Order: sequence, then structure tokens, then C-alpha cells
Amino acid sequence: MEQNYKLTLCYDGTRFFGWERQPGRDTIQGKLESVLSELTGKAVEVIGAGRTDAGVHARAMVASCVLDTGKTPEEIRDYLNRYLPPAIAVREVKLCAPQFHARYKARGKTYRYVYFDGAVRPVFERHYVTLSPVRLDEQQMRRAAAYLVGEHDFAAFCGNPRMKKSTVRTVDSFTVERRRDWVILTVHGNGFLQNMVRIMAGTLYEVGRGFWAPEQVAQILSSGDRRQAGPTAPPEGLCLMKVDYE
Amino acid sequence: MEQNYKLTLCYDGTRFFGWERQPGRDTIQGKLESVLSELTGKAVEVIGAGRTDAGVHARAMVASCVLDTGKTPEEIRDYLNRYLPPAIAVREVKLCAPQFHARYKARGKTYRYVYFDGAVRPVFERHYVTLSPVRLDEQQMRRAAAYLVGEHDFAAFCGNPRMKKSTVRTVDSFTVERRRDWVILTVHGNGFLQNMVRIMAGTLYEVGRGFWAPEQVAQILSSGDRRQAGPTAPPEGLCLMKVDYE
Repeated sequence: MEQNYKLTLCYDGTRFFGWERQPGRDTIQGKLESVLSELTGKAVEVIGAGRTDAGVHARAMVASCVLDTGKTPEEIRDYLNRYLPPAIAVREVKLCAPQFHARYKARGKTYRYVYFDGAVRPVFERHYVTLSPVRLDEQQMRRAAAYLVGEHDFAAFCGNPRMKKSTVRTVDSFTVERRRDWVILTVHGNGFLQNMVRIMAGTLYEVGRGFWAPEQVAQILSSGDRRQAGPTAPPEGLCLMKVDYE
Repeated sequence: MEQNYKLTLCYDGTRFFGWERQPGRDTIQGKLESVLSELTGKAVEVIGAGRTDAGVHARAMVASCVLDTGKTPEEIRDYLNRYLPPAIAVREVKLCAPQFHARYKARGKTYRYVYFDGAVRPVFERHYVTLSPVRLDEQQMRRAAAYLVGEHDFAAFCGNPRMKKSTVRTVDSFTVERRRDWVILTVHGNGFLQNMVRIMAGTLYEVGRGFWAPEQVAQILSSGDRRQAGPTAPPEGLCLMKVDYE
């Protein structure tokens, strides 16, 4: 019998070409679909809450899919973990209502972006952090981040130059925290445009290194012009932390 | 002018053939010596506090070497971190007395061995942990570990069958701690035989999975026979945490 399932998963995106299935390339969606197709003997489509870029990580990506299998959710989870590469782990598989849809029903997401600005680079966490060669001023970054909170047109922070739909989004919170040599940006919003978190992180980096004053971010936002914002920060510092549903 | 230096370093041993220099293979000592030879224009010999096996990690390995350079210790550290692979980081370089010798002057070492026995394997820490397919009884492991504390002949825990020197060592403390799905063994001693920590970890694993009673460890110890002990646990769970000097 066909049933709808909700999957929560964790992955180290370092060696993947992102979430989205692409012929001949290793992607998270591609790996999940191929293992689930082996399990059920049929083609399976996995819907992700969002599409992470190549090299971006997730601690709790949510996905949904319809499966026809006699296995329990726990057996599905264990089967996936046995056959998926070690860089992907399925934390939970749950039966869910037929109308559940990982993308359409997502109400919010939390992302974390991490910079390291110490003299001696980290070894064990090196794939999960962006190195900054200069010391960052996290207080200035915090002031800059405050301008991004609220409902705004984030066109200046959109990586897709041919975006036809609305670029209005709501950022509920954006915190900047220093723990010794680590500067941790945590942003929560109802949805994010393509590369939006990385462009915000790259813009705050320009503030943190003293190239821009925090107020510059207000001007960038109101310009609606991608060229005014900072560079897209590298993928390795980014991690999808949580997806909210009703 | 030639001066003696003390280096403290961190490495992810996953892709290295261990500490010791070997022709044509990537080793920690080999990488350090080649970068330091570039820096000084002369052959440099780096002496490590010990030789970690292929795949074993270190958070604070100590090494010493004699260098003839006009650079400050901090400049040497930065030069090393610029040219070493990202899996090796030099945390500190210090000038030290001419008689300092990283191996002969070491008074004690702390090692940590980590098992993971949860249902969903860790993703981000996957290279730094040994997976156990069965739940481990950490209380039984703790009882077993207690038999190893003290001055003993550890011949049964020595990986070198042709060891000619004394196999007597002192283990000062051996703790077993569970943090959710992680079982963490921490052992401190005045010195360790070849593979000794991994054989102790493999033996405690047999106790943790219920194959042996804790008292078996006392018998293994007094047998002096390597074949009585458990298998050598895999390298990835092992990390050198600290080296003590007077």
C-alpha cells in the first residue's frame, strides 16, 4: 500500500553536488531516490524542504516521499543507513498524512553560517567552517544583521538574476555570536531565496572585516541590486539546522 | 644559529600512514620535515613524543626539532600552517632548552578511544569514532578497565611480538564514560607499548558487548599472552590528547 513518509536527515555536503538530482553526479536527492527505489522495486521521488547548494551541509533536512513497502518506518531508516554513503544519515522516518509535502508545508527554516578567524585553523571541523584570514568584528556584524530582520524585498540577496516570482521574505531572527575564534551566524526565516543565506553571510563578512559600516546593509537591502551586496560566501560554512512545520 | 623548538600539533590521521616518515607515503613526520626543510634550506629531523599508527588522530602531539632560522616561533608556526596539508595544524611553536627531547622527556600521555553505539551513525564526526553495531555496557567496561590501572606487565596488550625491552608500564587512570550514544575511554599512563591502547580498547569492547566478564581482563593481563586479549580496535576511534613533560 502506498503511504507518505517524512524523513529527517543529516549530511556532510562536502563531496556532493548539492541536494538536487543531476544525471551522472552524486547528489543527496539522487542517493536517497536510488536506495529507496532499490528498497521498493519502483521509481521513487523524494521531495526536499529545500535545495541546498553543492558543498552545503544539513543537520536536519526534511524530505517526504510516497513508498509502497511492507517495512516499518524504523526498518526503512535502517535500510537507508545501511546503503547510503557514510556522509548521509537518516535520523528518523515517520509515517505522515497523505497531504504532507516537505516543500509546500515548510513554514520556516534555520540556517547557521560559521566563520573561523583564529591564528591556527581547526583540523577536525575544517570541512564545516569558512576560514577568515582577518579578525572579524562580531559587534559590527550583529548591528548589520539587525537591518535584515523583518519582512523585506531581498532582491539584493538573491543569487538568481532571472527570478520572476516575489523576492519578499521574512527574516524573524538573525543572531551573531562569537565563541573564541568562531563567529556563528544563525538566521531563521519563512523562506530563503537562492543563495540568500550565503550572500547575507558574505555581506556581513565585509562588515566584520571593516570594509563596510553596518548601515551599508540597509542601503544594499533597499537598492534591490545584487551587485551592491557582498560576495556569495563559500558553501562549507553553511548548514541547514532545522525545518519547521505546523 | 641552531636552536631547539617544541611544537604542539593537531592532526586528522585518516589519510596518513601514521606518524613515522616512510619513503613515498604521506606521514605526519614526513610532512613536517619536508616543510621545515623548505623553511630552513637544510634537512630537518622532527622527533615526536610517540609514533601514532596509520589512521590515528592527535589533538596535541608534541614534537621537537633543531632549526637554524631567523624567524620567530610564531612565524615558524604560521609558515608551517600555510604549507602543511589542512589535516595538520601546528597549534604552538616554542623555543626550548637544548636538552628538551619530545620522546625521551615525555613523562605521560593521555589517549582517548571513542565508540559510537547508537542506531543512527554520526555524520560530521564519522572519521573520529569507531562504530559498534551492538549496544555496549559501559558499567561492565568500567569494571574491566579498573583491572588495567596500576603498574603491570602489559605483554598481553603489546602488538609487537618481538618486543625485547620491558613490557612493564603504569596506567594511572582509565575512565569509561557514556554520553548518550558515545562511549568514551580515557587512559593516562607513563608510556604505552605498540598498539597497547587499541588492544585495551578492543578487549574492553568484548566486555562491553557481553562476550567476556570484566574479571576476564585480570586473567588476560596475568597471562602475558597477546592471543588471550581482544582484537586490536580500529584506528579511527583513537586520539592522542596530551603529552606531559616535567
